[in-house]
Amino acid sequence: MTVKNAFYAQSGGVTAVINASACGVIEAARKYPDRIGNVLVGKNGIVGALNEELIDTRRETKEDIAALRYTPGGAFGSCRYKLSDPEKDKREFERLLDVFRAHNIGYFFYNGGGDSADTCYKISRFSSMMGYPIQAIHVPKTIDNDLALTDCCPGFGSVAKYVAVSTIETSFDVRSMCRTSTRIFVFEVMGRHAGWIAAAGGLAGEYGIPVVILFPEIPFEKERFLARVEENVAEFGYCSVVVSEGCRYPDGKFIADQGARDVFGHAHLGGAALVVARMIHEKFGYSFHWAVANYLQRSARHVASAIDVEQAYELGVAAVELALNGCNSVMPTIVRLSDEPYRYKIGMADLKDVANVEKFMPESFISDDGYGITDECRKYLLPLIQGENYPPYRRGLPEYITLQNRLIPRKLKSFNGKV
Amino acid sequence: MTVKNAFYAQSGGVTAVINASACGVIEAARKYPDRIGNVLVGKNGIVGALNEELIDTRRETKEDIAALRYTPGGAFGSCRYKLSDPEKDKREFERLLDVFRAHNIGYFFYNGGGDSADTCYKISRFSSMMGYPIQAIHVPKTIDNDLALTDCCPGFGSVAKYVAVSTIETSFDVRSMCRTSTRIFVFEVMGRHAGWIAAAGGLAGEYGIPVVILFPEIPFEKERFLARVEENVAEFGYCSVVVSEGCRYPDGKFIADQGARDVFGHAHLGGAALVVARMIHEKFGYSFHWAVANYLQRSARHVASAIDVEQAYELGVAAVELALNGCNSVMPTIVRLSDEPYRYKIGMADLKDVANVEKFMPESFISDDGYGITDECRKYLLPLIQGENYPPYRRGLPEYITLQNRLIPRKLKSFNGKV
Repeated sequence: MTVKNAFYAQSGGVTAVINASACGVIEAARKYPDRIGNVLVGKNGIVGALNEELIDTRRETKEDIAALRYTPGGAFGSCRYKLSDPEKDKREFERLLDVFRAHNIGYFFYNGGGDSADTCYKISRFSSMMGYPIQAIHVPKTIDNDLALTDCCPGFGSVAKYVAVSTIETSFDVRSMCRTSTRIFVFEVMGRHAGWIAAAGGLAGEYGIPVVILFPEIPFEKERFLARVEENVAEFGYCSVVVSEGCRYPDGKFIADQGARDVFGHAHLGGAALVVARMIHEKFGYSFHWAVANYLQRSARHVASAIDVEQAYELGVAAVELALNGCNSVMPTIVRLSDEPYRYKIGMADLKDVANVEKFMPESFISDDGYGITDECRKYLLPLIQGENYPPYRRGLPEYITLQNRLIPRKLKSFNGKV
Repeated sequence: MTVKNAFYAQSGGVTAVINASACGVIEAARKYPDRIGNVLVGKNGIVGALNEELIDTRRETKEDIAALRYTPGGAFGSCRYKLSDPEKDKREFERLLDVFRAHNIGYFFYNGGGDSADTCYKISRFSSMMGYPIQAIHVPKTIDNDLALTDCCPGFGSVAKYVAVSTIETSFDVRSMCRTSTRIFVFEVMGRHAGWIAAAGGLAGEYGIPVVILFPEIPFEKERFLARVEENVAEFGYCSVVVSEGCRYPDGKFIADQGARDVFGHAHLGGAALVVARMIHEKFGYSFHWAVANYLQRSARHVASAIDVEQAYELGVAAVELALNGCNSVMPTIVRLSDEPYRYKIGMADLKDVANVEKFMPESFISDDGYGITDECRKYLLPLIQGENYPPYRRGLPEYITLQNRLIPRKLKSFNGKV
């Protein structure tokens, strides 16, 4: 078999563990020098391929590549870039294939969520059609946990651990203060359409903490919510609220909608915590505090879930192995074998069954009153937050790596497309 | 010497390590059963003493008391309660002394910040005058790091570590996204009058991260700030901003003032991050994200500084030792002996020199342009964030303890005062 190079890129929002997947891909590729020459990485994601800005990972030391396993963010940069549909405008796909051809790239590893699974699928379909067959493998990633056909997605377990730990800690705080001071703590977490992340706040219930969760799936009913908060304050002296940024009124409007939009047309949200806190204060006069996790939750490698780190890494390795076994248009997945003890294996799904399919949280994970999680949810979540995998520290700070990110020399002229 | 009981209470906002101080007090007291009988703790702080709600720490196991060392929040409850000035209205002080007399309390350990140092000082002054001499020792605590005569205050080192780690992690995130997406990340931290906490964000500079700090000490100048942000985006592609909740316009109005007030008359702040982020977006159109740390930063025992935990504990122990040596109206302090290697010893200050004295951050800690920290500041901060002291975990969650908090039987009638 001839030696071909591999292309890897990160896509969409980065997480605490996406670099662990990159580490898995690169370390696995380096084990097969007779099959894979170099791993070239798109600088800032797929736009790097379009601009022929390819990072030469051979210039990174073995130690620096290994350090990716405990470094958050996207070490090579990422992008939210919507490629033109090749059925409407072929130029971007033709450009990608020109770049791949020029650099002898036979394997395309795309590490992202739902939007990138679609791109990966299109590449797997059009590359042969357009004269340059390439094996396209999607490496799953998303804190939203909404990719189809995989039990969970890398990035989610660590956010879940972060949200659970933070909900417990802030609740221990407000519980201490509530006799004469703060009674309400509102914690805003990510989750546009699905309440997976908010559900993790429910794990604080194990500590006897009264948490009211505001899920995106449950239309927000103000009076019913306020009544529940009042009950908790009467019984416990305080109440914690975990609100998803995707929390919505019955008419569909986000509680936190500020009006801004991103390049994929998604509403730019934020501010649900203060809206909810004020609502409670206006009705009852309770003192409140509120926090917005935002990037804190998805970058918190300092408290990542060991299971999540392990799975992120293993899925990167699996992607390379699938490619070397001749697979195309697939995504390695997590298949859960048992809850307790937690056992899983790596499986595989066809990209045509993953692209553009959103996996919703089961209704049975949300308690009947809509404000909590069920035992079934707890059973699902707990394994994903197991174990601690701390980064090394030096002088009090985590030893996160910044790579050289040297580019391989260009071979083509500049791209005249819209990038 | 006769055996007397000790009284301990937590006061003001709780921290990740105030329970470590409580642990120090109780474990030290338990070493001298011939001098200290029981440690009775005010339920929810000093109001517990007024209400004669005294927690019997003898009913807590040795293991549970030991677990306080790694549990955040205030295990016995705390309060922001302003005792009447005994020179104007003696009833509350008389009540305290009645309670202390009834329960043979000879030692008063008050664990809090500036406001409680004042209360502790008054108790040391008035108790003899009012017929019941008691030794009053203040145990320092405050995330604001503003108690006089101590090099640093328990609670601060852990918040500093949290802010530094979080600034690094969120910056690694936005740095990954900035080519096509988010360019600005604004992180709001606590600090009403002093920029100690915001300064910790400056430690991210060690990673080549462009951080602009908005200190409470530096009047906010919008155009100059925006120009600095623009320079950073031009040079680095992105910019991180760490804004103190106490950031103020030149006229003195807080950027984040929402109008609410707490029982001590302090403005209830929050929302500076969104104000700053919007300001940047309106001027330049950069995509932004923002987070508000609020209680997350002061309850984050999962990433506490080992030095901070150690000092919090040792100051609790020292308070007991000072009391047993006959001291009154004092506070054990941290005296820094050297920066590198970091060496410190426990000292002592008179409460009359501590009460109502606020320690400000030296001007020399802030860079000339007002947006960064100096090497002098870095040299001060780095030792305080050294070492990691992780709590034990079980099933993925930290094993934080909740005490029994059983009350000792009352001996007096109810208090008819305002509590």
